[in-house]
Amino acid sequence: MKAYKLNDNVVKYTFGNPINTDAVVLSGEELYKDNIDFFNIKAEEDLSFSYIMNKTDIVYGLGESQRGMNKRGGIYEAFCSDDPMHTPDKKSLYGAHNFIVIDGKDKFGVFVDCPGKAVFDIGFSHKDELKIKVEEKDVNIYIINGKSAKQIVKEFLNIIGETYAPPKWAFGYQQSRWSYEDANAINKIADKFIENKIPCDAIYLDIDYMESFKDFTIDEKAFPNFKDFVQDIKNKGFRLIPIIDAGVKIEKNYDIYEEGVQKGYFCTDENGNNFIAAVWPGRCHFPDFLNSEARRWFGLKYKNLTELGIEGFWNDMNEPALFYTNRGLKEAIETAKASEKENLDIYSCFALKDKFINMSNNIEDYKSFYHNINGKLINHYKVHNLYGYNMTRSAAEGLEEIENNKRFLLFSRASYIGMHRYSGIWTGDNSSWWEHILLNIKMMPSLNMCGFLYIGADTGGFSSNANSQLVTRWTQFSLFTPLFRNHSAMGTRFQEPFSFDEDTNGILKKAIELRYALIPYIYSEYMKAVKNRDMYFLPLSFVYEDEMSKRIENQLLLGDSLMLTPIYEENAIGRYAYLPEDMLLWKVKEYEKRKYSIVKQGHHYIDIGLDEVPIFIRKNKMLVLGKHAQNVEKLDNKELNIIAFVEDKAEYIYYDDDGKTCDYKNNRYTEIFIQIEKTEKDYVMTVENRGNELVKELNFEIVDIDGNIHRKKTYLNG
Amino acid sequence: MKAYKLNDNVVKYTFGNPINTDAVVLSGEELYKDNIDFFNIKAEEDLSFSYIMNKTDIVYGLGESQRGMNKRGGIYEAFCSDDPMHTPDKKSLYGAHNFIVIDGKDKFGVFVDCPGKAVFDIGFSHKDELKIKVEEKDVNIYIINGKSAKQIVKEFLNIIGETYAPPKWAFGYQQSRWSYEDANAINKIADKFIENKIPCDAIYLDIDYMESFKDFTIDEKAFPNFKDFVQDIKNKGFRLIPIIDAGVKIEKNYDIYEEGVQKGYFCTDENGNNFIAAVWPGRCHFPDFLNSEARRWFGLKYKNLTELGIEGFWNDMNEPALFYTNRGLKEAIETAKASEKENLDIYSCFALKDKFINMSNNIEDYKSFYHNINGKLINHYKVHNLYGYNMTRSAAEGLEEIENNKRFLLFSRASYIGMHRYSGIWTGDNSSWWEHILLNIKMMPSLNMCGFLYIGADTGGFSSNANSQLVTRWTQFSLFTPLFRNHSAMGTRFQEPFSFDEDTNGILKKAIELRYALIPYIYSEYMKAVKNRDMYFLPLSFVYEDEMSKRIENQLLLGDSLMLTPIYEENAIGRYAYLPEDMLLWKVKEYEKRKYSIVKQGHHYIDIGLDEVPIFIRKNKMLVLGKHAQNVEKLDNKELNIIAFVEDKAEYIYYDDDGKTCDYKNNRYTEIFIQIEKTEKDYVMTVENRGNELVKELNFEIVDIDGNIHRKKTYLNG
Repeated sequence: MKAYKLNDNVVKYTFGNPINTDAVVLSGEELYKDNIDFFNIKAEEDLSFSYIMNKTDIVYGLGESQRGMNKRGGIYEAFCSDDPMHTPDKKSLYGAHNFIVIDGKDKFGVFVDCPGKAVFDIGFSHKDELKIKVEEKDVNIYIINGKSAKQIVKEFLNIIGETYAPPKWAFGYQQSRWSYEDANAINKIADKFIENKIPCDAIYLDIDYMESFKDFTIDEKAFPNFKDFVQDIKNKGFRLIPIIDAGVKIEKNYDIYEEGVQKGYFCTDENGNNFIAAVWPGRCHFPDFLNSEARRWFGLKYKNLTELGIEGFWNDMNEPALFYTNRGLKEAIETAKASEKENLDIYSCFALKDKFINMSNNIEDYKSFYHNINGKLINHYKVHNLYGYNMTRSAAEGLEEIENNKRFLLFSRASYIGMHRYSGIWTGDNSSWWEHILLNIKMMPSLNMCGFLYIGADTGGFSSNANSQLVTRWTQFSLFTPLFRNHSAMGTRFQEPFSFDEDTNGILKKAIELRYALIPYIYSEYMKAVKNRDMYFLPLSFVYEDEMSKRIENQLLLGDSLMLTPIYEENAIGRYAYLPEDMLLWKVKEYEKRKYSIVKQGHHYIDIGLDEVPIFIRKNKMLVLGKHAQNVEKLDNKELNIIAFVEDKAEYIYYDDDGKTCDYKNNRYTEIFIQIEKTEKDYVMTVENRGNELVKELNFEIVDIDGNIHRKKTYLNG
Repeated sequence: MKAYKLNDNVVKYTFGNPINTDAVVLSGEELYKDNIDFFNIKAEEDLSFSYIMNKTDIVYGLGESQRGMNKRGGIYEAFCSDDPMHTPDKKSLYGAHNFIVIDGKDKFGVFVDCPGKAVFDIGFSHKDELKIKVEEKDVNIYIINGKSAKQIVKEFLNIIGETYAPPKWAFGYQQSRWSYEDANAINKIADKFIENKIPCDAIYLDIDYMESFKDFTIDEKAFPNFKDFVQDIKNKGFRLIPIIDAGVKIEKNYDIYEEGVQKGYFCTDENGNNFIAAVWPGRCHFPDFLNSEARRWFGLKYKNLTELGIEGFWNDMNEPALFYTNRGLKEAIETAKASEKENLDIYSCFALKDKFINMSNNIEDYKSFYHNINGKLINHYKVHNLYGYNMTRSAAEGLEEIENNKRFLLFSRASYIGMHRYSGIWTGDNSSWWEHILLNIKMMPSLNMCGFLYIGADTGGFSSNANSQLVTRWTQFSLFTPLFRNHSAMGTRFQEPFSFDEDTNGILKKAIELRYALIPYIYSEYMKAVKNRDMYFLPLSFVYEDEMSKRIENQLLLGDSLMLTPIYEENAIGRYAYLPEDMLLWKVKEYEKRKYSIVKQGHHYIDIGLDEVPIFIRKNKMLVLGKHAQNVEKLDNKELNIIAFVEDKAEYIYYDDDGKTCDYKNNRYTEIFIQIEKTEKDYVMTVENRGNELVKELNFEIVDIDGNIHRKKTYLNG
């Protein structure tokens, strides 16, 4: 073991000779340490780290994983997995986010920088023991100190580097489906949004837009004159977002396949032959994204689509998902043949079925192929969690090279910490279950802790059939998530806003309008989180220190000013809410019509109609509200509304930038500093414009602690 | 359509010429009606009944099914299904319980007496439409009128006949596992309960106790001298409960098989050959339980086990579950073979897997076999939902003939309304998910509405791995359910009370002791519900008429006196509770040590430690509490404690009987009538003993509305 001091709060412990994952962007100075802080180490077959928790300790983190914000009670495996059944017992989802924070008698964070499998047993085997196991003994462990969970997270976000920011239009509503099968179907969807005057910025192309599921091809039958089509749709106000898969179809004369073979850019088996496994198109090879040359090669292929006018992508199947290999299929078929004359009992019958079920994403297959990392052959299984990360890095770096300084929309299914610098993620193939709204809520701050800010779930649920109420309630939560996309699977009920009845259409329209009106605040909070290494969604306990706030897992803080209490139960007409302090409640039916009430510190049952979105504004905080438009580019926010709940003094920094380039990284952005101070008889506003040329007027609605509204107006000097 | 008046509140509408299901025990007089009340009928391919709901109407019912107590928003298929993944989107579980109550602008109940598939679309397709569809147009529909949901249920329970009562020992704690593999394993489990002084009444024998999974056989290697073993275990204080499967193994010289073939008692295919499908033992025939002769024949086979000292059974796999038929297996294998040389893409790969997955419980197979009902061949698919019902009826009638007037423990997996007269049910193969505790809670009153009172879930969860906290919280709910059994699947973590740590063992021991102390109340309430055609678990709204009570789905009333607020969320240290009136809260750590607090009408957050079971006693109600013992037969309740919360007057009828025979049906039972009345300065108790010879003393703990405890004692004249 070696130890390195990264800064006053972070020590890296290196065991063996780990592969560089590029998750952490800082290195440090060597430091003498004969033991790792907090943990007992056991090195047997695995390397394990054990810590005894107090009964009331809370463990936060693990990004995209099951169970609560408090991860206690569960066992989790960091191993990127394509598993479409997100039942509560699943140990792995698509991402490997090995960062946790222990908040109790001790307060510290741990990042297990391990590209292979890591297991977090957080009081599952024994209720008071936290045990982390890594199969590969070459690993970096970071211990992060801080005074509070929030500060520890901030320290961690500091060492892993600045988070990806999408273009501003990607904060608009987005509509997806597996699949809108052709140009005609897409046009119809676009027209429906326009007809119904429901704002929308993007429509998705799922796998069927390609010719035989080949990356960077277009099915010419379904989409003749694709370039013109992209432009036509853009003229209507929508961007098209195609999906890209990790697997490259094995097909003679398919250029990507031919080039990859010729240049040796695919993963190989132990004999150096290109590794074969099936995904959407059937048998494929897999670009070796861990080989920097191959990574650059694949990344530049996105140009095939950017040249046609495409400005956003979603990278899928990059765990990588493997439907079957020749080995697995053969084994299953042999078992089937051998069963032909047998009298299969319960055990042999289950074994036969399992052969077919377990053909996919089989560990044996993951152990059978190799990467070329700086000239060294490395078994895939040992670096499994870096694959999707590096596919998406490939895309991000490629897009940067293709069009320097432009922000593209990009998000991925598989991920690892570090990938947050290149893109967002969506939370994969969830289901139209009420339970998955709650999971969505709980997962958001956990992902933020791991650096991922541009995130969202398939609103309405991907698998299973949604009813109108579920889509309504889910939309009413998702309208606060940076990635706000409605998506559903083939064979399920359609769930676009206008796919239900008139009432539902109306309610969803109002909810989406609210989203667009909130974009000034949402974008400001998002970009400030990027720049300040902060979270966008926070657990209550990250701000409030009372005991009850630590136990609230179904409410979130959004940025500096808001608290959310989403509805996630069928037929509910309200819900319980806990207020750690007095707050202002705005139940939004239509954002133009505003009525507020003050809710006192404590526990409350809040009535919330199906057409209402509850927004709590914290004390001495303010919300910036604009107006909606058909899409983000049409937003006209010359006038902004400032809704504030002020006891004595509130301050806010309103951030904005061009929303298109990466100039914000060079400090080219604007701010408006707003301060509201209560004097004896009135409120005094101080507004300091730091470069904003778009906003001309601020309309203040200041609510005092007695619920009186004070209306004011301020003009900005341009 | 014909109409029949059963009584002032119930009209039966007969469409076509339906099969008699024996669900309803009353017939009626013909009545002229040209339309069914409440519904619009459409007869196309299916027969459908449509009703437009008001926005706030609640729909209760459907017994064993997914979603909330209020079934709105879901689509449900009444088709007994062996599906071990109880995800929220499953339309069918093991039972077909086609009774619903609409509680809104109109109040009425509907029972769709249809042995084939019935679909209830309760605001799924359109949020305001209730649509019931039956595939077979021969059907009886009962419309039940009443002033309230509770009264409508009572009317319904009146027409379907008196519910099964198990022996009193079946109210003890029961321990199960798939499987305790041999006599030695069972002995070890029994000894652990004794060593730890944890009360327990029964230990289960899952499928591996049989020789090659053959019904009514014993694996002599695992269980040598079975009869002596049963007696030894009984001497230790436990009963053994073997499982019985619907399928009979095809094996030469196996007597049940040989007899069934010889007598023609098995279901046949369209050519009259005995139908073949595989279950546990591999290929089986299926007793034709719809043929009364075959039913009697199979029922009397239980004698093979009662003669060995067995007094309880669980009937399984009686949907019937079909692992595969020759057709399905062949089709799957052929598909596999044809795939050998193919490049399977996403669609063909999924299709291949589906062939193997869908081999089981395939509709095509259900349509391919026949019953002999009174000499007529009837396709199974049309009467599918009667199969498990009649298997269990076969057992119940057999056991009655084997040992007249004795109460046996009997419960089934598949069921139909009407089967409640013969046995209980357990809710099948759930999972160790927190969500399944909540599902368990919500399902209990729905099942009671359909006549099933002896019910319970696999406590701790069947599939998946449980942690100690989940087993603790689940046990703390299940201790109130009539069937109180901990069960888990092969390959999962052991979840007996002593399988975790010392703390957990201690908490579970106290919870199980509480159950035994509550048996006087639980048994009294259970038997009164049987005799009075009442529910044991009720939604709050069945007693309280305020609007909020209608929306509470995570609290239950238990009998006359108690309200339950179980914890079903991981790491919770309390929960919200709604009180429709002031109640007395007893947070039970050890039932011998009692501390109470008064909680006022309204919403509250209640702290509930992991070692606490919250029990609310309603105003002007009382709880009867005894003492625990190692098993039910050792209970000594000469002294009973009466815990009462009295504002002015409380009354209770304490029921008891011999707990062993069916004499209670002939009014051979005892009651103690207890009345507590507040006078100006004191409380006056009136106790009227109606034949009870066991109870000698009543110790009163009367809490007044100010929280003062008044202790009194009364002696009973014997």
